[in-house]
Amino acid sequence: MKLSKMVGERTKETPAGVISKSHEYLLRAGYIKQVCNGVFSLFTPALRVQTKIINIIREEMNKIGGQEVLFPVLMPRELWDESGRYSSIGNEMFRLKDRSDHDMVLGMTHEEAALHLVKNTIKSYDQLPFMIYQIQTKLRDEPRARAGLIRVREFIMKDAYSFHTSKEDLEEYYKIVKESYFKIYKKMGMKNVVSVKSDSGMMGGKIADEFMLITDIGEDSLAVCDNCDYSANVEVGESILDRYPSEERPTELVNTGNSQTIEDICKLFDIKPYQTCKAVCYYLAKSKKYVIAFIRGDLEVNEIKLRNILKEEVVPISIDHPKIIAGYIGPKDFKEDDIITIYDISLKDEKCLVVGANAKPYHIKNFSFKRDFIPEKFENISKVKEGQHCTKCGKGSLKIVRGIEIGNIFQLGTKYTESMKMTIHDENGKEINPIMGCYGIGVGRCLASIVEENCDEKGIIWPYNVAPWHIYLCPLRLDDEKVLKVTEELYNKLQNSGYEVIYDDRNVSAGNKFADSELMGIPIRIVISPRSLENNSVEITIRKTGEKIFCELSYDKILEELCKIVKKIQ
Amino acid sequence: MKLSKMVGERTKETPAGVISKSHEYLLRAGYIKQVCNGVFSLFTPALRVQTKIINIIREEMNKIGGQEVLFPVLMPRELWDESGRYSSIGNEMFRLKDRSDHDMVLGMTHEEAALHLVKNTIKSYDQLPFMIYQIQTKLRDEPRARAGLIRVREFIMKDAYSFHTSKEDLEEYYKIVKESYFKIYKKMGMKNVVSVKSDSGMMGGKIADEFMLITDIGEDSLAVCDNCDYSANVEVGESILDRYPSEERPTELVNTGNSQTIEDICKLFDIKPYQTCKAVCYYLAKSKKYVIAFIRGDLEVNEIKLRNILKEEVVPISIDHPKIIAGYIGPKDFKEDDIITIYDISLKDEKCLVVGANAKPYHIKNFSFKRDFIPEKFENISKVKEGQHCTKCGKGSLKIVRGIEIGNIFQLGTKYTESMKMTIHDENGKEINPIMGCYGIGVGRCLASIVEENCDEKGIIWPYNVAPWHIYLCPLRLDDEKVLKVTEELYNKLQNSGYEVIYDDRNVSAGNKFADSELMGIPIRIVISPRSLENNSVEITIRKTGEKIFCELSYDKILEELCKIVKKIQ
Repeated sequence: MKLSKMVGERTKETPAGVISKSHEYLLRAGYIKQVCNGVFSLFTPALRVQTKIINIIREEMNKIGGQEVLFPVLMPRELWDESGRYSSIGNEMFRLKDRSDHDMVLGMTHEEAALHLVKNTIKSYDQLPFMIYQIQTKLRDEPRARAGLIRVREFIMKDAYSFHTSKEDLEEYYKIVKESYFKIYKKMGMKNVVSVKSDSGMMGGKIADEFMLITDIGEDSLAVCDNCDYSANVEVGESILDRYPSEERPTELVNTGNSQTIEDICKLFDIKPYQTCKAVCYYLAKSKKYVIAFIRGDLEVNEIKLRNILKEEVVPISIDHPKIIAGYIGPKDFKEDDIITIYDISLKDEKCLVVGANAKPYHIKNFSFKRDFIPEKFENISKVKEGQHCTKCGKGSLKIVRGIEIGNIFQLGTKYTESMKMTIHDENGKEINPIMGCYGIGVGRCLASIVEENCDEKGIIWPYNVAPWHIYLCPLRLDDEKVLKVTEELYNKLQNSGYEVIYDDRNVSAGNKFADSELMGIPIRIVISPRSLENNSVEITIRKTGEKIFCELSYDKILEELCKIVKKIQ
Repeated sequence: MKLSKMVGERTKETPAGVISKSHEYLLRAGYIKQVCNGVFSLFTPALRVQTKIINIIREEMNKIGGQEVLFPVLMPRELWDESGRYSSIGNEMFRLKDRSDHDMVLGMTHEEAALHLVKNTIKSYDQLPFMIYQIQTKLRDEPRARAGLIRVREFIMKDAYSFHTSKEDLEEYYKIVKESYFKIYKKMGMKNVVSVKSDSGMMGGKIADEFMLITDIGEDSLAVCDNCDYSANVEVGESILDRYPSEERPTELVNTGNSQTIEDICKLFDIKPYQTCKAVCYYLAKSKKYVIAFIRGDLEVNEIKLRNILKEEVVPISIDHPKIIAGYIGPKDFKEDDIITIYDISLKDEKCLVVGANAKPYHIKNFSFKRDFIPEKFENISKVKEGQHCTKCGKGSLKIVRGIEIGNIFQLGTKYTESMKMTIHDENGKEINPIMGCYGIGVGRCLASIVEENCDEKGIIWPYNVAPWHIYLCPLRLDDEKVLKVTEELYNKLQNSGYEVIYDDRNVSAGNKFADSELMGIPIRIVISPRSLENNSVEITIRKTGEKIFCELSYDKILEELCKIVKKIQ
């Protein structure tokens, strides 16, 4: 392709509001253009990268037996009523009415459509297991679209759905998909990828893993053990609690005035946060109840864990309830129909804490969870903290790092096959609900993540497998007849040898051409200039290393050199 | 791919409500499944055909210099306000609100998005001409989704947009695209394709062509000359009017009682319809005016021509207006602000017609448009009729045939570049609006149209280039070890030679397998049975011709035979 006619322009200025390298470079190098918040058009170079990413994914999905299908973007409400998600999913789902005033939704995920396709089509156990997948546009009304293609409202996704007759069969296939995902990321050129245990969120099911590219601009916090292979999203991460020795002493009621926060209390009593008990308040909008979560003062409540225990979304709230004395809430049995209390495991056996007295302006000193109030049950609702010990190896200490979620896999179980009434006959003719897994990869987010991991101060450095073009053919002085002739010949020959070549046929300065080739991130640049031709050579530059090779102007020699370079950088 | 694990089933029964062969066979052979009115999921075989169709289109688009890009499905209202189409397009456009209550639309066409992408990106005449295209999901709220994939509400479309500095340059490129389209259809295996002049509809612009596959289930009526190459959608078709001799006679006012229709009047006066003048009433919803269209009684009003003259949508209506006497309307100057009269060219110089008297219950006999009332202007508003003569060659007579629109191309001019304010600098530094063309092909409709043209009573007959698989490998008696061994070997070898093979590894009867291979429409079937192996041969059947070839069981011989067959049927 010739650069002079290519739509899209390269700019030196960093656009306003850009917070990540991928966002900056994809805009500046003429890859994407924003249409509205979280919605982008792709120029040809981005489309080419996207196509390569899709082909890598497709190839691996086919290798593990996937059957590619296509579900619609537009779906009727009824399908989502069957699974119950029309009402359980909030306004991240786009909803609309058709001309007959019929409720429709736009696909943000396709479990319902997958069930629709296979239900009444697959009838017997011997047709299982199988996996279907699609590569299709998805729409999600993200409240916080950000960072270019990292978090958007419209994106292409590969989503796969597998169906099994037993839990064991699903677990086995789940492992195969996990391996396949690591292969995919590796082929795309991503290096720092880990899989972490995660929350299944709106998808349902119990076991879920996320694939994370470790990078500072990531939105997710991950707990990673420095000794073993344990890693988890902090949303579901576990850790060994630090325990501090304490002795039972008589309780004292203390007038604490306006001291309400853990910080104030620590100052007043000259103690550490772990010597206090904190109360955090939430509201359950559906069941219209208040929740008080008690936790040791040095820890934070993990709302995902809390939600999973309560089986309902929790909303942090400042409570306005006659029985709850904000700022002075302490552990006790509230015995009110509209108040639920939850006690974190960190409080168990604690013998000497400062806690609220449930009366203004008092706190109780030397409160013991073995003596003064013993809750029926302790739950695990705390967030993992940097430096805590790993539950898996018992030795390592946990580091909190940031990551971009570049894929996720779920063991869904029978959530959808039960609710949508899909049954098959097992070996004995009995009707059973197949057990499902589902597996997603966002294509656009992968594209941006690759850039995050593969760039420098000059621009993008595309891994060879996903580069929009392999070679940036860069003649200097196209008015020189010999330069023109050699370039045109090389352009044709390289393409005939299977290289994808972008030909910079513009009449601009060498500096301009070099800067564009670096900004665009094309892996190999070949410069043909009157000077290089005088020496009967061309100059080959490797984008990744900056290495320059002067190669004899012979097509065989150039091919040989390219072969060596490709092996090195692939 | 092995058939036993393939999702989708083949059925013998024709589903209810099916009106076209493609709809029937695509359902029965396990290609598609309806999700709701006009919305389908594709099983793997359909996805494979679709991918091949897309690749044929992409290859040809790249050959004529197309740059593939990607626009979003979801677009903000503002973009469509710029072109004015947010208000000018009716409820065939899906509209929705996002979580911030912002008006959004779903892409049914992408002129606005194309302008958005290139505006401020392309700045100078020397970057033109160029063409960008995408292959993307489109959504249109069709009032009458029908015939499976023929008319749907969600479909994949290739849409291309070209930009030029002059009308001549656009016209030249328009011809290139036209040729390219014929190549595309030919490669897909469609034979009976014509291009017809058409109305540009909501796209704007003046010159437009549609590509039609001639078939009885088509929704469009085409006028085709039996002598020259003239063909046009009847919506815009022209023809030579038959003229009948007539003489002036004195007018008579006749009480015609309840005779109001042309049929009644012809009976009463014992005349032919061409000896009458018909009045057809319409309403202009925007400008709130009534329209009376007068036309010779043997002709029909073409509402598209009428709309183009009035530059507003016309709605047929029974008029309720004090000055208009329904059933007895006759030609006169109505002189009312809210009534527009249009006189068809067929009435010019007619000297002896029966016309309404604008008074109940009277008609006028021997009315003359040369004597009794001479309109200011005659317009061409009649529909082409079968048997009329061709305006192009003057000799041929026109046949009316039915066709499916499988593509369309438009010379848009500056409609969008003006309204959306895209300018570039011309050679002299002057700001000009580029001149646009746009070019569409519906992928799903092509898929269905191919089936319409390529099927028989047993099922589909896929053209080789778009077949989901080339070969249906059909072992009989898989419990026979030798059959199994030969089949597995052949399966691997054929695939290694580049053939796409569907392997019927099911334990079902020969009849069942043959019927499925025919219903699915796979071009070549290879049968391996204990009997054929006794003769050291396999049986190759060509789906299209039914021809059977017994080929020696040697891989070289089989390859040789396949080569011959492919050449013949491709």
